[in-house]
Amino acid sequence: MSGEFALIERLVAALPCRRPDVITGPGDDAAVLRPPPGMDLVQTVDTCLEGVHFPPGLDPADVGWRCLAVNLSDLAAMGAAPAWGLLSLALPAADESWLDGFARGVAELAAAAGLDLVGGDTVRGPLAVTFALTGFVPPGQALRRNGAQPGDGIWVTGALGGGAAGLAAWQSGDCSGAAAFLRPRPRLEAGQALRGLASAAIDVSDGLAQDLGHLLAASGVGATLELEQLPLHPGAAERGEAGLGLALSGGDDYQLCFTLPPAREGVLVERAARWDEAPARIGTVSARPGLVLSRNGVPVELPTAGWDHFGGGGA
Amino acid sequence: MSGEFALIERLVAALPCRRPDVITGPGDDAAVLRPPPGMDLVQTVDTCLEGVHFPPGLDPADVGWRCLAVNLSDLAAMGAAPAWGLLSLALPAADESWLDGFARGVAELAAAAGLDLVGGDTVRGPLAVTFALTGFVPPGQALRRNGAQPGDGIWVTGALGGGAAGLAAWQSGDCSGAAAFLRPRPRLEAGQALRGLASAAIDVSDGLAQDLGHLLAASGVGATLELEQLPLHPGAAERGEAGLGLALSGGDDYQLCFTLPPAREGVLVERAARWDEAPARIGTVSARPGLVLSRNGVPVELPTAGWDHFGGGGA
Repeated sequence: MSGEFALIERLVAALPCRRPDVITGPGDDAAVLRPPPGMDLVQTVDTCLEGVHFPPGLDPADVGWRCLAVNLSDLAAMGAAPAWGLLSLALPAADESWLDGFARGVAELAAAAGLDLVGGDTVRGPLAVTFALTGFVPPGQALRRNGAQPGDGIWVTGALGGGAAGLAAWQSGDCSGAAAFLRPRPRLEAGQALRGLASAAIDVSDGLAQDLGHLLAASGVGATLELEQLPLHPGAAERGEAGLGLALSGGDDYQLCFTLPPAREGVLVERAARWDEAPARIGTVSARPGLVLSRNGVPVELPTAGWDHFGGGGA
Repeated sequence: MSGEFALIERLVAALPCRRPDVITGPGDDAAVLRPPPGMDLVQTVDTCLEGVHFPPGLDPADVGWRCLAVNLSDLAAMGAAPAWGLLSLALPAADESWLDGFARGVAELAAAAGLDLVGGDTVRGPLAVTFALTGFVPPGQALRRNGAQPGDGIWVTGALGGGAAGLAAWQSGDCSGAAAFLRPRPRLEAGQALRGLASAAIDVSDGLAQDLGHLLAASGVGATLELEQLPLHPGAAERGEAGLGLALSGGDDYQLCFTLPPAREGVLVERAARWDEAPARIGTVSARPGLVLSRNGVPVELPTAGWDHFGGGGA
């Protein structure tokens, strides 16, 4: 670790390494790690900026949990088991109380995910949290975006719209309704269970329509979404038609959206019996590019702004 | 990669993956990588902020090179061979011309170092460059800070004071004298050659006195530095006594400082014959904690502010 000494010491003390594959944790020029033989590694990095990715004024423990969750969700989407994290933290001031809360939120989720923080950096600057994570996946079993085939079912691992509804609740002072936004639960177990099963997968960070759009574009296919099948988070469901818009375009849900050949549905149901939430089949992959929305079999267009920007495609 | 689409596309195009161990590069939720059997991994992260770690107005190619060099230097200090990098880039505006220059500087040094950029993220914010790097080292051969023994020689891999002198030159408009600051060359070859040879090592990023102080504190020893033996960069040497202060406390040199049992000096000389710069023996490790400065055998105190803050210790 480097950066401001007192802050780093505090972070290191609050985030002890427990994994036997961490040979040298924080405190040298870099960490030394021993990967398990025969596994591929999965790596991702994301920066969360206050005012852009989360609103000013969040409880620091929620900032810590949430920023780590966003990154873990990318490992989940690849089917990877979390192992090691690096943290770069930009803080406007050396606020030890804030740092303690932040570390508590990080530690709580890291412990649940089996992740060790093995190194880091602190700098003085506008509040920004960057995690770089490494996970493990058996060779050839990483879940990709580009394997969806016409006829595959389209599934999500759980309720949608809760992230956006939770943010709205938090902004209106309803903290109890904000949990889905403040403490998203990356679907790590589901992602690992989908190895060798899903033909493609992506995490729902920017809204189902946009993220499914990325998956379809990467696979060179299209899809029909059956809107009446979307599992809505209670916070979204109570908003009626607007809640459907949140599910399609609200973002911050951190469920996984995946495609599955129909012949594998039985195995999915069996494996998913152990998940916290039941997966839902919400549509079908088609050969023709483009995303068709239908309701009870009838094609529809929703008068919702924002949810159709998946047209940009790409990754 | 995530973040702003057009910027990410531009970065990815400018930084193609070439390593056969990159199974899936940028473009999915995360990268998939295949580590070589039987090697340990070394990981480091560092954020460089404009206005803190480099002055506003630098050529973007120099920003790219410099920020990557700073991170590669941590791998060098561990004796690791660079492999994979993740990049998180915060930019105040979507400036494509700046981005092209930045990518050019990164690409140039990455190619020289054998590093592939396998993933990344862009966000809108004050200019900040975060690299998270992974390198390889044979098990048990990572260079640590904590192995120095009384009687070991203290060495540096090359000239000191060039970083600070280069920054001063750049600030006074002398770009030709600024190369050591703008384009530091991480001592990757030297670091790998020191495996199994050096008893401890650290990179000189904050100035020799402070960084050697970290190494001595981690090893629980002290040292005498022989000031007349310090190899001064020409930009520092021409400043006389002030140049010595730059060498001790200027920082940004990115040489390696290491300790070596006297019996291994012959092997060092043999291996170092292939290095760009010759290493220099600049002192001796002592059992008694603390750093003594001597000149021609006489203990001295230098009237230089700043260079004695290694007393803070730690890592």
